[in-house]
Amino acid sequence: MTTFVIVGGDAAGMSAASKAKREDPDMDVVVFEKGAWVSYAACGMPYYIKGEIETIDDLVQVTPDAFREERDIDLRTNHEVVAIDTDAQTVTVEGPDGTFEQPYDDLLVATGAHAIVPPFEGRDLDGVYTLHDLDSAEELRGIVDGRVPEEHAGYGSEADSYADHVETVAVVGGGYVGLEMAEAFRARGLDVHLFEMLPHVLQPFGEAVAPTVEEHLREQGVHLHLDTAVDRFHGANGHVVSLDADGEEYDVDLVLLGVGVAPNSDLAADAGIAVGESGAVATDEYGRTNVEHVYAAGDCAESRHAVTGEPDHVPLALTANRAGRAIGQTVTGDPEPVGDIVGTAVVKVFDLAVARTGIVDEDEAREHGFDPVSVTITGSSRAHYYPDAQELEIHMVGDRESGKLLGASMVGREGVAKRIDTVATALHAGMTVGEVEGLDLAYAPPFSPVWDPVLTAAKVLGGKLD
Amino acid sequence: MTTFVIVGGDAAGMSAASKAKREDPDMDVVVFEKGAWVSYAACGMPYYIKGEIETIDDLVQVTPDAFREERDIDLRTNHEVVAIDTDAQTVTVEGPDGTFEQPYDDLLVATGAHAIVPPFEGRDLDGVYTLHDLDSAEELRGIVDGRVPEEHAGYGSEADSYADHVETVAVVGGGYVGLEMAEAFRARGLDVHLFEMLPHVLQPFGEAVAPTVEEHLREQGVHLHLDTAVDRFHGANGHVVSLDADGEEYDVDLVLLGVGVAPNSDLAADAGIAVGESGAVATDEYGRTNVEHVYAAGDCAESRHAVTGEPDHVPLALTANRAGRAIGQTVTGDPEPVGDIVGTAVVKVFDLAVARTGIVDEDEAREHGFDPVSVTITGSSRAHYYPDAQELEIHMVGDRESGKLLGASMVGREGVAKRIDTVATALHAGMTVGEVEGLDLAYAPPFSPVWDPVLTAAKVLGGKLD
Repeated sequence: MTTFVIVGGDAAGMSAASKAKREDPDMDVVVFEKGAWVSYAACGMPYYIKGEIETIDDLVQVTPDAFREERDIDLRTNHEVVAIDTDAQTVTVEGPDGTFEQPYDDLLVATGAHAIVPPFEGRDLDGVYTLHDLDSAEELRGIVDGRVPEEHAGYGSEADSYADHVETVAVVGGGYVGLEMAEAFRARGLDVHLFEMLPHVLQPFGEAVAPTVEEHLREQGVHLHLDTAVDRFHGANGHVVSLDADGEEYDVDLVLLGVGVAPNSDLAADAGIAVGESGAVATDEYGRTNVEHVYAAGDCAESRHAVTGEPDHVPLALTANRAGRAIGQTVTGDPEPVGDIVGTAVVKVFDLAVARTGIVDEDEAREHGFDPVSVTITGSSRAHYYPDAQELEIHMVGDRESGKLLGASMVGREGVAKRIDTVATALHAGMTVGEVEGLDLAYAPPFSPVWDPVLTAAKVLGGKLD
Repeated sequence: MTTFVIVGGDAAGMSAASKAKREDPDMDVVVFEKGAWVSYAACGMPYYIKGEIETIDDLVQVTPDAFREERDIDLRTNHEVVAIDTDAQTVTVEGPDGTFEQPYDDLLVATGAHAIVPPFEGRDLDGVYTLHDLDSAEELRGIVDGRVPEEHAGYGSEADSYADHVETVAVVGGGYVGLEMAEAFRARGLDVHLFEMLPHVLQPFGEAVAPTVEEHLREQGVHLHLDTAVDRFHGANGHVVSLDADGEEYDVDLVLLGVGVAPNSDLAADAGIAVGESGAVATDEYGRTNVEHVYAAGDCAESRHAVTGEPDHVPLALTANRAGRAIGQTVTGDPEPVGDIVGTAVVKVFDLAVARTGIVDEDEAREHGFDPVSVTITGSSRAHYYPDAQELEIHMVGDRESGKLLGASMVGREGVAKRIDTVATALHAGMTVGEVEGLDLAYAPPFSPVWDPVLTAAKVLGGKLD
């Protein structure tokens, strides 16, 4: 009987465990998760804090007990793997009952990523949060609900609770999490200051769509501080009360750091497992690392980008689920590729949807050896005469030499999230811009103009490529 | 100077005219349109009658005068081409000032399609309509608005007007137009009986999605008569008052025939231009007919279906626009293929969207030499825990031998219309079901589950193909 050991019990790890067990019920599948939670919907946390999702249980897709009892997976929560010995094929595990060695036949490193906390002075003050797991989500929900987290019980004057104090929030970082949390805090009636050190929010979505997003954030009452670097936090009684940003001081009651994530690859690196340029674990098309019998998947691992053909690190849920599932099958003797990515993403920002896929930045395209040409068009989500038609902006990039589509970004109030999938599919297929222009896409007045905006963008871009 | 003559001034014709003139301003572009209207949004007519679109002018994309003055196109409305002499390269035209011959260097047959009127007894009674042009739309809007069409002014007792009488409408045919008009009439407070002679509505969308549509129609108060053939109409004072269907008589005040369209290909056929099996004009990849210098495009012409590689007749707006535009470019000396179709379509049915692409029927797949396997799955339009997530059904068909995707249909309250485009794009690319399963599609809780329903359908179908 073979033993498949998995380090990390989130999307990639539990997908691999479930698939392996389904394919080979005799396999010993052991999962070590250092926390208490497994397989939860991290992407739903902002909506839990916003109050749109009632209980945190809604975010737990499968409980630890269900994995154990229904799927027969040896899941050990509160167990941290602290070392891997790839020669002996063992991992060293620290659990509630001490440290032990666990042998493996195949090993999956699915250690995820962590929220980056820049070395700001005052970052350890109470009231400075990252949204890194369900515990932090629970605490933030408690605060916006007016419940007092234990550690803040002594804050302020006798009559006041900390939660009652919270009126002004600083969101540091204008990425997905920052914008989703800005929306959540505004929905809870808080004053929100958003600080982004770059000139625009949502950097991976490119500059073409950013101004529309920024205008919308301002309309929604978010105080937007672009090109503004936060330097330090000031505290009183151990609690954050203000921050410095580009020489100015802002009074704040709560800080949410959303400056990005970094792969948890140290465990692998320390064991001599190769890490790529991105800092994530390097893998091949089957999720294998450079060490035999060791796989990596999820937010700690690289994937192959179909447009560039090169490794990339895009830590997103679908990639993790898919790679985990493929590896779970591969270790049972039926190899399954983990699949390429094209970097597709969508985020809701108040009433807008913002989406991207492929390469949307000309500089990035040049770095990969392309000769990029791009256009930005404004289209309509429905026939122009149909009620409630919404404007839709599409930025599309092509390669002059090959004529190939390289990527696109979009922003609008409707019809964005799944329209980007058309472009993503075209990227997987390696289509030229001309081929995209020739797609037979769905038309009916309530859903699209005759020429879908994707077709219009390809038509205009094609004209510039000729 | 060359002369490009176009027969028919709707989507294909006016697209060709505009493109040719833009590419070669010196070209003589002459369009003969037998009616008064050109380039109008026929697909918007049900929404005009429904009252969601205020004036009929909203449906006229470019006025005849704008074509003449701004685009320098010699547009002759109320001119009917009655014969083509392909040897002499002339057409015979009947206009308000008599009959004349018009020579051409290149000719585009863009005569469109007509609403089929089965040979029912009583079909010529007043109150029996097809929705075939803006005049009929105007008349139907007048009726639901309570205005009295001229020809009905004498109907009924002195005090009554015909429009006041209209309470019960029979829609004959459960295709796009029939269902859109059922929605429009219900919105205007009318009692609607829908008669479909086949066992299900929306036949081209396949049987998998039909029951959901039919249940929704009933919920919306439509009296649905499936498997029920209308035989004849009865009149009083020249006006329809009832109909017979499968031996039963139904009192009706108004009838809307929506039993499909047929290509206007007689003009071409009479001139020796080849017509395909579908009854539409046969064309090659550049829209050329079998006769030199004669092209055909739009609802009167066939297209090549990318899945089967064979000619097909799918009269839809995008195909007409695209083919017209390509031919307009080709005649100026810069050949441009008209492009393949994959039969993508979407229709709004009250609160549902129903979409299709490719081959969704197993029998049809077998006729084309495939060995079809299909699945129907139920997914969610959003993450299951996100508010207002809607069920989505996807039927997907693959070919056992090649593993290729053949088509899909979908139904749901949101996220359907543009999700079908992902499948359509995959069909254009000739993807296998496994490749579809591997697509990197957009995920965020408000817009999709982690595994988009399209991926889930491909995953399940892939399991059956193995």
